[in-house]
Amino acid sequence: MKALVYHGPGNKSLDERPRPALAAATDAIVRVTRTTICGTDLHILKGDVPTCEPGRVLGHEGVGIVEETGAAVSAFKPGDHVLISCISSCGKCEACRRGMYSHCATGGWILGHKIDGTQAEYVRIPHADTSLYPIPAGVEEEALVMLSDILPTGFECGVLNGRVQPGSTVAIVGAGPIGLAALLTAQFYAPAQIVMIDRDRHRLEIARTFGASGCIDIESTDAVAEIMRLTDGAGVDCAVEAVGIPATFELCQRIVAAGGTIANVGVHGVKADLHLESLWDRNISITTRLVDTVSTPMLLKTVRAGRLQPQQLITHRFTLARALDAYDTFGRAAETNALKVIIEMT
Amino acid sequence: MKALVYHGPGNKSLDERPRPALAAATDAIVRVTRTTICGTDLHILKGDVPTCEPGRVLGHEGVGIVEETGAAVSAFKPGDHVLISCISSCGKCEACRRGMYSHCATGGWILGHKIDGTQAEYVRIPHADTSLYPIPAGVEEEALVMLSDILPTGFECGVLNGRVQPGSTVAIVGAGPIGLAALLTAQFYAPAQIVMIDRDRHRLEIARTFGASGCIDIESTDAVAEIMRLTDGAGVDCAVEAVGIPATFELCQRIVAAGGTIANVGVHGVKADLHLESLWDRNISITTRLVDTVSTPMLLKTVRAGRLQPQQLITHRFTLARALDAYDTFGRAAETNALKVIIEMT
Repeated sequence: MKALVYHGPGNKSLDERPRPALAAATDAIVRVTRTTICGTDLHILKGDVPTCEPGRVLGHEGVGIVEETGAAVSAFKPGDHVLISCISSCGKCEACRRGMYSHCATGGWILGHKIDGTQAEYVRIPHADTSLYPIPAGVEEEALVMLSDILPTGFECGVLNGRVQPGSTVAIVGAGPIGLAALLTAQFYAPAQIVMIDRDRHRLEIARTFGASGCIDIESTDAVAEIMRLTDGAGVDCAVEAVGIPATFELCQRIVAAGGTIANVGVHGVKADLHLESLWDRNISITTRLVDTVSTPMLLKTVRAGRLQPQQLITHRFTLARALDAYDTFGRAAETNALKVIIEMT
Repeated sequence: MKALVYHGPGNKSLDERPRPALAAATDAIVRVTRTTICGTDLHILKGDVPTCEPGRVLGHEGVGIVEETGAAVSAFKPGDHVLISCISSCGKCEACRRGMYSHCATGGWILGHKIDGTQAEYVRIPHADTSLYPIPAGVEEEALVMLSDILPTGFECGVLNGRVQPGSTVAIVGAGPIGLAALLTAQFYAPAQIVMIDRDRHRLEIARTFGASGCIDIESTDAVAEIMRLTDGAGVDCAVEAVGIPATFELCQRIVAAGGTIANVGVHGVKADLHLESLWDRNISITTRLVDTVSTPMLLKTVRAGRLQPQQLITHRFTLARALDAYDTFGRAAETNALKVIIEMT
């Protein structure tokens, strides 16, 4: 089969690889029909994720058709149309029993990281019963690729952890795909304001069409002053950090209201300053989270009901044969205006 | 009347001052019967709290008898035996309506800070209806002085924010009065372990008698390794920071389990490093809080019912005439083994 393989920092290629086989009774083999590229894949290619070794098939998002199941798989059978979760979970360990699937003792984020991933014609899914979701009839498949990772990440790490409520004021720092996923799902809860903060004017324009009540171009505007103006000097109830660098995390500390929450979504490579000297008495919460994908069934229902249109995030489409072009387009997003790119296997 | 007055960094004296008078219809004048000294008073004396100006009567804790009430006070009358909250709250502003009394628009921590405090024979209490609590009959007055600040602080900022649950593992970094208050009140929730971490062996011995399941002397033991040993390598569900310096806050980051909480109680003067590069995917929460004293009525019930013995924290007693000796004893706690000192007005 064809597969997009990581060959060490800066190196990747579309290679011919053997089709994966069942390795445990709880495995399924899925024929991938559509996949996508995540910012994390770019991190791997930069060499920022040393736990991902050369030779790894990348990708942790996708939809497909179950091809084969191990003897212990009971929830799925060959021919089933499934959504692949970016988080593999056994459903049995202590973390899984608490719903913290991201910290499953034998799973978590392993696809396209510690085991071969979804940017290939076939993928082996461990713990298939609790790592795949059935796709209901009548839902456009392409949109659901967004539910493998990006939408539950924006929703769980940003909106749920950020305790967005009716009437809340929300600022989302970073209008990339994850920030936009938080923007789309924050609207479930009728917040009073959702202000997007970024330096990319094109992304801010998109955010406006996705329902942002305000947009701040941090290149031309004092974001702290503008947030204070918009919130009568209080700051925001919820600040979502969707970039992953110290400067944006520190901005969140300056705009959060007393009693508010900073919900970190960004993947950080270095420490940040925490200004406890000004925050110790502000009754704030700071949360971190690797997505658990506990909300995936709920998100599937919102898509089916037309409350959420994840396909809004898709800007480009490629065949697997053009996977390198897909990476190039996604990697130069500032020039190509790419948000999410779809890779189709046909 | 006699009052303990702050005269700028390093300077205080017991002065003769005029008795306070009602200034607003919502005020009460309380004849103080017992008060105490807080670590925050020492911070003021060091010059760390510039919002407290010279000439201020110190103190934000105490019990007494209502002497006089303004026309708008309806919940109290002269002669009532009352507990003074360290937090004054109007009960009417947005923060108060949310139960976040610490951020009351016209209150918060103002006693012995922005207005004259309780280390005096009489004190003016603004917003008396919502800043005093009636003392039930049959409860020892001395014990209740501990409920003005230290017990609700340890409980709300440490135990409630730290989400201590039955079966939880808890570490409390700092076995001073506040850490011990968290230790006493954490036991309401039947955690599996409460481990105290400090460098003062006397305080650790006291913590053991107060119910700590384990004590770590950070001078002689690798606290991280010991916590990991006690928790099968997982870390603690709840790490309470009860010191207020970067080193102890960073220790909390190293001992918190995936899915756990760092509940900051300490008053910090400088920033700390937040290791987002290792915490971004750990599903943790960090909380800060100035005590709201929302739990004071509940804590009063636990004292009355014998579920909590706050008098355990009292080590020394002085008359108001010896208030300077009380400060000296409290300020040299490492030598005097002082926890909380009581100042009686008789």
